[in-house]
Amino acid sequence: MELVPGNSLLTATPEEGRRLAVTLARKTIGFMQPDASVREVLRPAYANDADSLTAAGQVVATEFQTIAAANDYWRG
Amino acid sequence: MELVPGNSLLTATPEEGRRLAVTLARKTIGFMQPDASVREVLRPAYANDADSLTAAGQVVATEFQTIAAANDYWRG
Amino acid sequence: MELVPGNSLLTATPEEGRRLAVTLARKTIGFMQPDASVREVLRPAYANDADSLTAAGQVVATEFQTIAAANDYWRG
Amino acid sequence: MELVPGNSLLTATPEEGRRLAVTLARKTIGFMQPDASVREVLRPAYANDADSLTAAGQVVATEFQTIAAANDYWRG
Amino acid sequence: MELVPGNSLLTATPEEGRRLAVTLARKTIGFMQPDASVREVLRPAYANDADSLTAAGQVVATEFQTIAAANDYWRG
Amino acid sequence: MELVPGNSLLTATPEEGRRLAVTLARKTIGFMQPDASVREVLRPAYANDADSLTAAGQVVATEFQTIAAANDYWRG
Repeated sequence: MELVPGNSLLTATPEEGRRLAVTLARKTIGFMQPDASVREVLRPAYANDADSLTAAGQVVATEFQTIAAANDYWRG
Repeated sequence: MELVPGNSLLTATPEEGRRLAVTLARKTIGFMQPDASVREVLRPAYANDADSLTAAGQVVATEFQTIAAANDYWRG
Repeated sequence: MELVPGNSLLTATPEEGRRLAVTLARKTIGFMQPDASVREVLRPAYANDADSLTAAGQVVATEFQTIAAANDYWRG
Repeated sequence: MELVPGNSLLTATPEEGRRLAVTLARKTIGFMQPDASVREVLRPAYANDADSLTAAGQVVATEFQTIAAANDYWRG
Repeated sequence: MELVPGNSLLTATPEEGRRLAVTLARKTIGFMQPDASVREVLRPAYANDADSLTAAGQVVATEFQTIAAANDYWRG
Repeated sequence: MELVPGNSLLTATPEEGRRLAVTLARKTIGFMQPDASVREVLRPAYANDADSLTAAGQVVATEFQTIAAANDYWRG
């Protein structure tokens, strides 16, 4: 199972970087819980709970922090 | 769905940067829960709970950390 | 509603920087829950709960991290 | 109420830096809940709960991260 | 018990770095709870709970932040 | 009570750095709850709970981030 698509943190734009952050977060969940049917069962639990969504947002914010630094904040 | 408005982390001022941080956090919630009606139902749950608001504030603080670094802290 | 008082992260001293960190955290809560009467109702819930206060302290610590870096840690 | 004792993040040693981190965390709790008698009531709640202590430890770790960077990690 | 496999944070690629981040996180859990049978009992509790998986994802994101910085984001 | 063993963040290797991170986290808990008998009572509560272990792992990850930066990631 691939954890870092394209095996790189470098993206052309912040938008791509943000989507990579979401992907890294999701791939890690998939790595820790490889059973897709279990993940499917869990989805409503977090997608319909404000605090669960916020906690997931915190993970994306942390991943994005890393990716943004990797890309020197796309100051280009 | 656009996750990073204007596809840039660069803003003219800290105030703009702070609003971008809130926007990034909110757009990510929207990306993870695309159903606006569900988000509408969830809003009272977090907007009327001290810990939920604090957790959301933690996400904004993390996003702002990234944006502030991107803008070299607007040291101009 | 202003989120960053003075529209700057630069302060003369760490003490001012710390107070700005608390202000940023509080202003964000106010931005997410603009109804002052609701915030008033919520205050006892977090001000009288150890974990709630700790979580709020985590937000201030994260905001201060950003402000301290902005001011090069007041190494002057 | 003083939030940053000595109005400086600079300390002679990591040990002093660590104690400053604990102090910053505690002073912020005191700033958010100025009533010492309430804090006294709350202390057992967090000091006798593993997760509460861990959450408080997370705040200290974040504060220390800032102070360590301020002191260039005492690489002297 | 070894906490950092290979006693290095340097990896050839982001993918290796990401796996090292997961390993660091897991090894620390093992260090704090050395009883493998207990960890086995605990696994379903976190692997079948959305918030638990998210919290574990937050740890991996933080570890990866460190490893990515160590490898200068594999900008090579 | 000593919070930073050896009063230094500098270690020869990542492995030593990781152990120092665990020690810093534990020493802070001990500082906040000095009663060893209470800590003994609390241990099973966190060592047998997946989320508690994860939260403790988050603290270690944050402490390690600081120590790794202090040692320039042992890039030597």
